[in-house]
Amino acid sequence: MTTKDLTAQIIQKKSFLCIGLDVDLDKIPDFLLNTEDPIFEFNKAIIDATHDLAVSYKPNTAFYEAYGIMGWQSLQKTIQYLNTNYPEIFTIADAKRGDIGNTSSRYAKAFLEDLAFDSITVAPYMGKDSVEPFLAFENKHTILLALTSNEGAFDFQTLPLAQNQLYHHVLETSKTWKNASNLMYVVGATKASYFSEIRKIVPDSFLLVPGVGAQGGSLSEVCRFGMNQNIGLLINSSRGIIYADATSNFAQKAREEAVKIQQEMQQILEKNSFI
Amino acid sequence: MTTKDLTAQIIQKKSFLCIGLDVDLDKIPDFLLNTEDPIFEFNKAIIDATHDLAVSYKPNTAFYEAYGIMGWQSLQKTIQYLNTNYPEIFTIADAKRGDIGNTSSRYAKAFLEDLAFDSITVAPYMGKDSVEPFLAFENKHTILLALTSNEGAFDFQTLPLAQNQLYHHVLETSKTWKNASNLMYVVGATKASYFSEIRKIVPDSFLLVPGVGAQGGSLSEVCRFGMNQNIGLLINSSRGIIYADATSNFAQKAREEAVKIQQEMQQILEKNSFI
Repeated sequence: MTTKDLTAQIIQKKSFLCIGLDVDLDKIPDFLLNTEDPIFEFNKAIIDATHDLAVSYKPNTAFYEAYGIMGWQSLQKTIQYLNTNYPEIFTIADAKRGDIGNTSSRYAKAFLEDLAFDSITVAPYMGKDSVEPFLAFENKHTILLALTSNEGAFDFQTLPLAQNQLYHHVLETSKTWKNASNLMYVVGATKASYFSEIRKIVPDSFLLVPGVGAQGGSLSEVCRFGMNQNIGLLINSSRGIIYADATSNFAQKAREEAVKIQQEMQQILEKNSFI
Repeated sequence: MTTKDLTAQIIQKKSFLCIGLDVDLDKIPDFLLNTEDPIFEFNKAIIDATHDLAVSYKPNTAFYEAYGIMGWQSLQKTIQYLNTNYPEIFTIADAKRGDIGNTSSRYAKAFLEDLAFDSITVAPYMGKDSVEPFLAFENKHTILLALTSNEGAFDFQTLPLAQNQLYHHVLETSKTWKNASNLMYVVGATKASYFSEIRKIVPDSFLLVPGVGAQGGSLSEVCRFGMNQNIGLLINSSRGIIYADATSNFAQKAREEAVKIQQEMQQILEKNSFI
């Protein structure tokens, strides 16, 4: 998928919502636990109930690996279900991988080719040759951790260098990498004021923004400083949507939560004359 | 396993060799491809042929994820085989994970508890709360990326800060984290001269050293600057050992390569009066 397709989908759905599929068997409705694949059944119901309100789904691989082979089967079925039934959806493997070149190639093939995700999140610490293998896939996207939404973001990411801060340098350096046009960035919403700094460095890239809602970020602030001429934002919500309810009515309640966010997004898109 | 047990094993085996199980179906002997689980059969043969010469085995998860569910089954069988048959071995999940706190907890449980590895490699970019969930497991070890062996290491890890370089700061900061005594560090052998700097910051920790052999690092140089009073080094070799031969004789040839390294290590241990 191209970023142009993604922007078109955002305008059509009046939403730039990404739903995080971080599935925990302790939190999903009990009745699903009797099905053959509770994680997949949960995801399927959430996706079916929200696909017209979200442009992207993002399973975090940790939640699947936690269940071993069973979890990988659920992940595989989930991405296949998305690709088959909702091919317009921008899919994100939130895997935060990164290793030496030939090893990163393995991760890239696994997630972008075999599982056929549209994108994967990647950690920058190992530098250029750890990221470029992901960038080599045409019409696939590498979402590089820039400034994350957790407290530990301030341990290293904001360290002052001679000219700027480490995450600035990560952003700037990444622009020189081969196929850099396939880059997007993770930028935490808990620091909305950082967005204007970031937009000076990467004015055109899409930013994946976790931390709105449960983690305390403000959607309107993020949009004020982070939106660009192609919208350029994917706002993720996980727990606030998928665990809105733990009864047989969970998918409908998830939809209601997604509607609330979509309507706020629609207002912002209207205000900014995108629709 | 405690680091004391690890040092005792090193002295008993006269070796601080870690063998990287980075299994590629294109590189293993053809006859194994007809078995039910070629990756596991390959690993089993390598382990059986070398377990008295190595103190540690390190499967890199990328090579297993590349084969999807089949790969995860092979990984699970490999760690089970090691834990059942050679419980003295220090096992490393080379996974380079790291995410926000509750997500890192999932990875930690998956690798340290369910798969029961002794340790896991972790990326530092997301800071304290992304690493501490791994450190919470008693007698398990978190091997933090400090200075890696690839070219991209110079993109960010060696960036100058006000007082020092980024990887220095990662090392120093990590020492303040809860259960920091469970930390080890990845330090690339292609930069042996860095080891004396690193030993000033983390004199007592074990260092996992990739990059000796195929990647060009010198064992004697690494030991000269990196060894401490508990030996404190695990030297990894992957391709040079496991792909020494692609015939039915592969395990014996792998053993011969491991013997060469073990003998060099024995000389170093003798020279330094550990044995």
